[in-house]
Amino acid sequence: MDVANMSPAEIRQLIRQNQLIRPTSGVANGFTQANLAILKKELAFEFLLFCQRNPKPCPILDVTEPGSAVPTLVAPNADLRTDLPKYRIYREGNLVDEVTDILKYWEDDMVAFLLGCSFTFEQALLKNKIPVRHIEENCNVPMYKTNIPCVKAGRFEGPMVVSMRPIPQKDVVRAVQVTSRFPAVHGAPVHIGTPAVIGIDDISKPDFGDPVPVRAGEVPVFWACGVTPQAIAMHVKPELMITHAPGHMFITDKRDEEFAVL
Amino acid sequence: MDVANMSPAEIRQLIRQNQLIRPTSGVANGFTQANLAILKKELAFEFLLFCQRNPKPCPILDVTEPGSAVPTLVAPNADLRTDLPKYRIYREGNLVDEVTDILKYWEDDMVAFLLGCSFTFEQALLKNKIPVRHIEENCNVPMYKTNIPCVKAGRFEGPMVVSMRPIPQKDVVRAVQVTSRFPAVHGAPVHIGTPAVIGIDDISKPDFGDPVPVRAGEVPVFWACGVTPQAIAMHVKPELMITHAPGHMFITDKRDEEFAVL
Repeated sequence: MDVANMSPAEIRQLIRQNQLIRPTSGVANGFTQANLAILKKELAFEFLLFCQRNPKPCPILDVTEPGSAVPTLVAPNADLRTDLPKYRIYREGNLVDEVTDILKYWEDDMVAFLLGCSFTFEQALLKNKIPVRHIEENCNVPMYKTNIPCVKAGRFEGPMVVSMRPIPQKDVVRAVQVTSRFPAVHGAPVHIGTPAVIGIDDISKPDFGDPVPVRAGEVPVFWACGVTPQAIAMHVKPELMITHAPGHMFITDKRDEEFAVL
Repeated sequence: MDVANMSPAEIRQLIRQNQLIRPTSGVANGFTQANLAILKKELAFEFLLFCQRNPKPCPILDVTEPGSAVPTLVAPNADLRTDLPKYRIYREGNLVDEVTDILKYWEDDMVAFLLGCSFTFEQALLKNKIPVRHIEENCNVPMYKTNIPCVKAGRFEGPMVVSMRPIPQKDVVRAVQVTSRFPAVHGAPVHIGTPAVIGIDDISKPDFGDPVPVRAGEVPVFWACGVTPQAIAMHVKPELMITHAPGHMFITDKRDEEFAVL
């Protein structure tokens, strides 16, 4: 199957029928993928407020009406209960199940949040011939907890998590420009060059993901990471929270370029 | 008093003491002013969702925690109950009072929304030597209901309201560029040149504000307008809704330039 060139609707149909259970990197190229977080309505206002106050780590692409699993803005024919390849179920902050649909977990007062993911800006970097190390190395992006506090909203508070990409010195300015065009998928970097300034003591030991080498002539550049809202939501220990499984994203009908601001 | 060059904190202090009751245009120059809408918590999630889905007419600058009148992001020392020169009180969608503070109307479950206003991008146009007709004519900007539907959220739905500025043909591209830098204050235009396309039959008869002439060599350019969320909220007929009185905005501690995306 040529999953790279299939349409989002075709891919979602395969996923819904459990005929495609795999990470979504490289699937439906050019179309925007999204992180999923589902909470009950009781927490939804606070979480929406948290995302609104922290747009770099938590860029909102769509939020469903309470009880609806249809993301009307980004994929009006999709069903978020069945159209991701793999989900994780958390109760009181503990992982209790990993499933290929959430029909049996869905409740009438649930609100689903789709948040932008870094795949989009990484594609923009690659198109500008700026290398992306963890793609070259075929591993996960390294992620770090920082000393940068998110802006609190209700019960949601905690530090920002960032991802790191080593960028050749000559490309750093262009990397800022290219990613600034996409605020809906984390946007411009939050820090360039000195990890200790943002509370990272050892760049070879990421808190999540895999370490990658920073070579001579390269600068570590840090972007706000979509792991932030999940990590912070877990701290609240919601009665029930559902997310995508790592790397198993939701594929929207929107093209990456539609999220560029200029 | 040199109100143009006073700080936001100084101006708010005067307003709080009822020593400055006037429209805020030309006050604390360079600092961002905001529209105010206050609703009870029961409607706040839907309204926040509506704004999130319609960022051009409803660009959120700050939202308070339920029960708090402090806009921690844009003016952490302010009190939204006293720091605007004039407020309007609406019950079931009807204007029932106009007051200089809302201490007696404030309730413990209220949420205040501050939304970007066009003053910011008009200053950016003027700095680029692009004329702003209604400022030249010392009248209100002309505003029109369009046939462009807002994206519905819960009970909130209805058409987008736009404002119109006649722009010299040679400046239209620059006007798009300049205002695109400021998505937090309505951003790029929604239409250029042909009012009928967006449902405006007679440009000389605005639905709100005052008509202004479009001269030879000028193009009517339309931007999403902050009147939209108020007009749409009124349709829902909330039990109690509080807004700023027209032209009597909230003055934040943020400089306009801080809201530029690039």
